[in-house]
Parts: sequence; C-alpha cells; structure tokens
Amino acid sequence: MPVPGPGYSITVRLEAPPSASAAGDLTTAVGRVGGVLTAFDIVESHADAIVVDITANVLSADHADDITTALDSLPGVHVRKVSDRTFLMHLGGKLEVSPKVALRNRDDLSRAYTPGVARVCQAIAANPDDARRLTIKRNTVAVVTDGSAVLGLGNIGPAAALPVMEGKAALFKKFADVDAWPVCLDTQDTEEIIRTVKALAPVYAGINLEDIAAPRCFEIERRLREQLDIPVFHDDQHGTAIVVVAALRNALRVVNKPIEKCRIVVSGVGAAGSAIIRLLLRKAPADIVAVDIDGIVHRERPGLDENLRLIAERTNAQQQTGTLHDALVGADVFIGVSAPNLFGAEQVATMADEAIVFALANPDPEIDPLEAQRHAAVVATGRSDYPNQINNVLAFPGVFRGLLDAQAHKIDDDMLLAAANAIADVVDDRLNASYIVPSVFDTAVAPAVAEAVKAAARGDEVVSTS
Amino acid sequence: MPVPGPGYSITVRLEAPPSASAAGDLTTAVGRVGGVLTAFDIVESHADAIVVDITANVLSADHADDITTALDSLPGVHVRKVSDRTFLMHLGGKLEVSPKVALRNRDDLSRAYTPGVARVCQAIAANPDDARRLTIKRNTVAVVTDGSAVLGLGNIGPAAALPVMEGKAALFKKFADVDAWPVCLDTQDTEEIIRTVKALAPVYAGINLEDIAAPRCFEIERRLREQLDIPVFHDDQHGTAIVVVAALRNALRVVNKPIEKCRIVVSGVGAAGSAIIRLLLRKAPADIVAVDIDGIVHRERPGLDENLRLIAERTNAQQQTGTLHDALVGADVFIGVSAPNLFGAEQVATMADEAIVFALANPDPEIDPLEAQRHAAVVATGRSDYPNQINNVLAFPGVFRGLLDAQAHKIDDDMLLAAANAIADVVDDRLNASYIVPSVFDTAVAPAVAEAVKAAARGDEVVSTS
Repeated sequence: MPVPGPGYSITVRLEAPPSASAAGDLTTAVGRVGGVLTAFDIVESHADAIVVDITANVLSADHADDITTALDSLPGVHVRKVSDRTFLMHLGGKLEVSPKVALRNRDDLSRAYTPGVARVCQAIAANPDDARRLTIKRNTVAVVTDGSAVLGLGNIGPAAALPVMEGKAALFKKFADVDAWPVCLDTQDTEEIIRTVKALAPVYAGINLEDIAAPRCFEIERRLREQLDIPVFHDDQHGTAIVVVAALRNALRVVNKPIEKCRIVVSGVGAAGSAIIRLLLRKAPADIVAVDIDGIVHRERPGLDENLRLIAERTNAQQQTGTLHDALVGADVFIGVSAPNLFGAEQVATMADEAIVFALANPDPEIDPLEAQRHAAVVATGRSDYPNQINNVLAFPGVFRGLLDAQAHKIDDDMLLAAANAIADVVDDRLNASYIVPSVFDTAVAPAVAEAVKAAARGDEVVSTS
Repeated sequence: MPVPGPGYSITVRLEAPPSASAAGDLTTAVGRVGGVLTAFDIVESHADAIVVDITANVLSADHADDITTALDSLPGVHVRKVSDRTFLMHLGGKLEVSPKVALRNRDDLSRAYTPGVARVCQAIAANPDDARRLTIKRNTVAVVTDGSAVLGLGNIGPAAALPVMEGKAALFKKFADVDAWPVCLDTQDTEEIIRTVKALAPVYAGINLEDIAAPRCFEIERRLREQLDIPVFHDDQHGTAIVVVAALRNALRVVNKPIEKCRIVVSGVGAAGSAIIRLLLRKAPADIVAVDIDGIVHRERPGLDENLRLIAERTNAQQQTGTLHDALVGADVFIGVSAPNLFGAEQVATMADEAIVFALANPDPEIDPLEAQRHAAVVATGRSDYPNQINNVLAFPGVFRGLLDAQAHKIDDDMLLAAANAIADVVDDRLNASYIVPSVFDTAVAPAVAEAVKAAARGDEVVSTS
C-alpha cells in the first residue's frame, strides 16, 4: 500500500470527550485506516469536551472520507469540519504583483508615473535596449502554456493549468529571484501560440514554455527561437535533459564507467525523451537506443514523424528492432520518461553489470525503484520519497537567472551542458549511489547553475559577434 | 517661467571647500539658474573638503546641465556625479512577482506544486469557475497597451510604454490591492490585438485597456466586451469620463445649476472626449456640443467617421456650426480633452454666467487656468499644481476592486455612473469651487468606488439572469 504524502493533507476539526484516553483513541483511529497523522492540536478545552484539529496525510478523497468516518464513529466524537490544506493554500492564488518603489506622496507619484515617467519612456523609445535596464523586462520571464500536457493530467486546458504555472513562478522567485508570470493561452493552435507569444514578448527577457504537448512543442520552440531576440526554453524538454545529464554524469562516476563505452536506452520519445537524447548525443555515448509505445525506434520503422526520423538517424547504430525488453539486454543505462510499470527486476538482471536505472515516469515510475535496486547499481526516480530525485527545479531557476544576468538573446546546448555540469559539481565529494544529485533545497544549486549559464552565454555572445 | 516639479529631480554629488560659506554659495548657485533645491546632504566631512549631495527639481536636461555647470564653476567645487532620481527609481523596473505562500520545505512544495497541485488543477478542470477561487484570476487584471497613444508622447511602441503600464500596475496595488500585470503588445493591428487579448484572458478577471489610439480603441473594446466573459474597461475613455462626471456633478452644485439646463461644450472627440459625451448623455443635459480640430461636429459635416457620426446624431440639437469659439458663446460648461492654448479669458467671458471650465489637456491645458479663473466660477485641470485635478487614479483602482469583488462578467454605464457618484460623494461638505474632487491620496475614495461598483455589478447580474 502506498504511503500518503503531504500533497494531500486534511485537517479534521472535531469535538471529543475530555477523557484521558481521547488522544490515543483518535490517533489510533487515523492510523487504523492508513492515514499518516502529522499534527494534533487542541483548539479549545472545556469541562465536558475538547475541540481538536487532527491533521493527516491521506491518499485520496475516498481515503479522506474513510478517516473522517473512522473519527466520527468513535464514542462521543463529533466531526465539525474537514479542510483540505492544499486547497486552503491555493485560495486566491499563489502570486501577487507588488510595487518595488514607494508611492507615499505626490513626489513619488510624479516620478513613478506622470509626468516623470515620460522621460523614461522617451529614453526607451530612443534606445530600445534600455528596456532591459529601466523596466521589469530586466528580470522577468513568461511561463507559457496552452494547458495541453499538464503534469500527468494531460490536456486540461489553460485555466486548469494555471495553478501549476503559479507554482512554477513561485519557485522561480524563491530559488533564483526571477520574476515569472503565468501566461495560460486559450488556444492550442501552433500558429496562434507562436503569434501570441511574439506579440507579448516586449515585457519579457525570456520565455519558459511549459506543459505543451509534443510534437507541437518542437515547432513552437524552434520558430520562437528564430523570431525572438530573447531566449526560449521548453522546460519539459531542456530542464529535464539538464538534470538527467547531470545525474548520469555522477551515476557513471559511481560505477566508474566512461560514457563513451555506454549503451543507453531511453524509453519515451516525447518532449522530455527527445531532448534528453539530443543533449546526451553531445556527450558521445557508445550508442543510444530510443523506445516508444511501438517498440525500438529504427530507421526502417514505418510511420516515423519528423521528430522520430531525426532521432532514428542519430541513434541505434546497430539498427536493433524489437521491444523495450529487447533493448534492455546488455544496456548500461536505462532512462525512462514514459509510463508506469514497463518492466521488472528480471529485465534489470539482463542489463550490463553495474546498471544504472532512471525510472522517471510520474507519479508511478517505469519500474518500482525497490525492484530495480535488486540488480542495478544506481537508481533514480522523479519522486520525492526515494533517493536521487530528478527534479527540474534543480535547473530552471538557475538557468534563467544566468540568462537574465547575461542579458542573453538566445540559449544553446553549450549553456544546457554548462548547467548540467554545475548541478553535478555541487554534489562533489558527497557522491554515492544514493546521492547523485543535490537536494532541491540545496541553496548552492541555483547560484552555481546561474554562474555557469551566464559564463557560457557570455562566451557564446563573444563568438557570435566575432 | 514654469516652476520645476519633482518629476525631474537630480542629485549632484560634489566636493566643496569646508568653509562656512560653502552651503550658502551652493544653494544660491542652484537658485540663480532656476533650480528648486529640495535636499542638501553632507555625505562626508574632511579637514580639507566636504562631499555634498545637492538634490534639486529641474525643468529639462539642458536645465540640469546649467545647474551642474553653475555648481562646478564655483571656486574649489568639483562635481563628481549627477544622478537623475526618476531614472534611479526605474532601474530594474517597478514591479515584482512574489509568492503569497511559504515554500520552506518539501511539504510546502508538495502542496504548492507537484504532486498536491494536481488536485487543484482537476477541480478547476471539472468546474472552470473555480479558477476565480483557487488561482490568481481571483484578483488579477491585465493592463493592455499597444503603445500607440502613450501619455502625451504618441505612438512610442510597446517597450517604451512599459514604464507607464508598470506605474499603472503599481497604483492598482497601492490604492486597491489589485494585482495588475503589464501586457505590452508588439502589434498595432486591431484584429491581432483582439486575438491576443482573447488568447491570454484565462489568467485575468478583468482587462484594462490603456493608451490605445482612437478609433482603433473603440472597435477593440467593443469586440472584446462581446467575446470575453470578464469586464473590459478602456481607462482613457471610461476612467476619464467617470472622474469628469463626478467633478461636474460637484461643480454644478457649487454654481447651483441643474444639468438639465446646461449646454456643455466638449473639445476633443478622441477616446476620452467620446466617452465623456456618452456618459454625460446619461445625465440628460440640455445639450452637448462636440468640437474637434475641424470645428463643431454636426450631422451635415462632411467626412464624419463612424464614431463622430454617432456623436453627431446624439448631440448639437441646434445643429450649430462653426469654431470652438462660436460654441463657447453662452455655454455653461467647457470640457477640454484636446490641445493646449485654444482660447483665452475673452472667450470665457462670452460663456454663460457662473461658467465651469475643465481644461484637461496634458501637460498644457486648453486655457491657462489662471486666465480661466478671471471669468469662470469653477476651473479644473489635469495638473497636480492647480486645484481640482481631474485624475483617473480616482477611478480605476476602485472600479476594478469592485468588479473583482463582484466577480463581474461585464461592465456597463450604470457601474460607471455609480463610480462617478461615489467619487463626488466623498467630497461631501468639504465642497467649494477649489475642491470639487477628492485628493488622489484620499484613502476613502477607492473603497467607496469599489463598494458602489460592486453593488451596481451585483444588481446588474440579478437583472441579467432574471
């Protein structure tokens, strides 16, 4: 049975008898039906009753009902109210827009607004680059989605995607002091998305594309990169690729294998898988074998779309065919960004010695990590409740901090690799099979990534203008 | 000679001899060339020299140079650096985007972002109205411009317009706790603007159009109002109209004339003038005569565009023709939103007794207000350095606060009139010829406007669903 996490946490307010055994009865009731009690607060105490807030992690709405019923059916207990901490946290949204300047009196107003602001406008009209100095463009990134591929939820549309984009913006500010703004577009037409992002670009110094379905996301990113003079970064692609490359570099250090001798199986060739393959190719592994729902990707496979055709041309040197299980035989590394429960320990046993398994499908990985550990030397997942969490938050805040500080006009693979190296380097001598990437709360990560990306961006600018 | 205001303020850092007369020499030098000294700060003091920051309001860049030269040429004085306080205030922009929720640890992250956020997304996917409860849409307004008619600067484009939109957003937060976000569009095509605003609407509960040129602004507003389920408000039109109607109601109380007996001349029939006329017509004045650069608007005038034709049909009952000066003869009220210096005291003398003159062209009004006062009973301008400043900031923060609190899907003239009445009512028994509108810093205004708009919006919703 899975263990409830803090993502779904309820607080039950109830009245109970003031008996010595009440607390024990209540906590036992929660545990008996599988709730994880995280707080027990007495809110009121009277001669004939106490009022208690019981907070517990639960698995689902049904599970929350089970717990509430278990509590309510105890003798003398009466449940008053059940609140959901996640929903409470979201009331009114998770972001606010605040002035950075004081507006205390008319003099302040004269400078921040009319008439003083007119001179600032004129300076920018005369020299458009000044917008990066004198406006929010200096530090602001758009988090753009069409709501077509949100988390594991699929195509839920722009309004339902907004809580994710707000969360992303909050992480940008928290980890890298980047001002990020959600742009949830009420269209899923490629041309319309491109046109809209171009139209709203003047306010932003970078575009973070988010949760846009493949293959549309490739075209949108490519065209926007061509047409805008600010960097465009699809986090589902490149954020994931950066962290995977960082984790793989450290995992290979653990097993002491050079990447040049490794055969790597990548399962899932959507946004993330395609970007992982492209970035890994820069590291010149012995081979990469891509696998999707139709099996191994090879040049002769019928019905390849443009993205798969490009991948087929650059991978699978042996032109292997077959299933994921076939691909795994003898492989040094498995990287999954695909679907839950695709294989078991017996397939890991067919891999090369000291195998590395990154099972990143969310929330349920390609293989149970405990199963994988039976034969693999290093295992990573996308989950926070196992070691080695591959989480994009290690990459995107620092990447954009670096791009903004460099006032970069574009982003390229050298910058992505610089970010990956910076993340891997933070681990340093703490490296072991259960610690191949830093914690998401390691405050050293974002500044290190920013510094690396900024240096790469500046180097790149020098090359591009010479 | 005009008096320098705080919108252009410089700070000169200089070294001076430590003599007893140094301070006097420095301040005298500033005053001699017309600077208004606002601060004198000794930054360092040594045996052989002092370092001083002299802050002064100036008229222009040339004037700032004059002052710097005057200081630098004093015996023993050496100017180190001149900084412009308005530009300093704008460095890095005037807004930031901050999380409203704590992200201290993994539990917080699990609720604000994955996996907990997924349940919030699903709730909104199931019930889209929940976006107004569980996301920033609850409290967020887009400030949309194409940069085509910015302040008095004209068509300076979207990047150069951004400092104004940031200032507007700062005022929204300061006066009414509304989260407003600048949307500066890199297009001036009517269809493209409409399409883009529709595409980005899911994040917002209201659209504030700003500084978009007429007649494009009319079409954009009309179409967006038809196609969006959130209120669309063009501040240059309706914000101005609200405050003018409020000010006129109080001015007419001062002179004790009923509006039904008043002939009103409106000079300028762009965005603001057209909206003022439309809202004034709801108050049933005796007549309105509109005047533009081609003279009085009447039905037979050749070359009327759609906007002017609509106005001609509803105004100028006598079908008067001629110039602005002709129109003023016998008029009770002049309202100008047009161009500087169109008439003088001799024309005011031809108006009816107890004439009211609102000369709102910015920065230079249609008539010098001191001239107007020679014959008019009440005079107002758009400037902060005369009494009776007609300033949109009295209207837009409270209007949107009310719309957001009512979760309004649209805005109509009843709400605009409710806002105007609320502004006029705040003046109450402080009313006199020099105090027909509240100060922009009167904290009672925005809540009063919000309450009035909210009540009108709720009343309206009841009617519309019955």
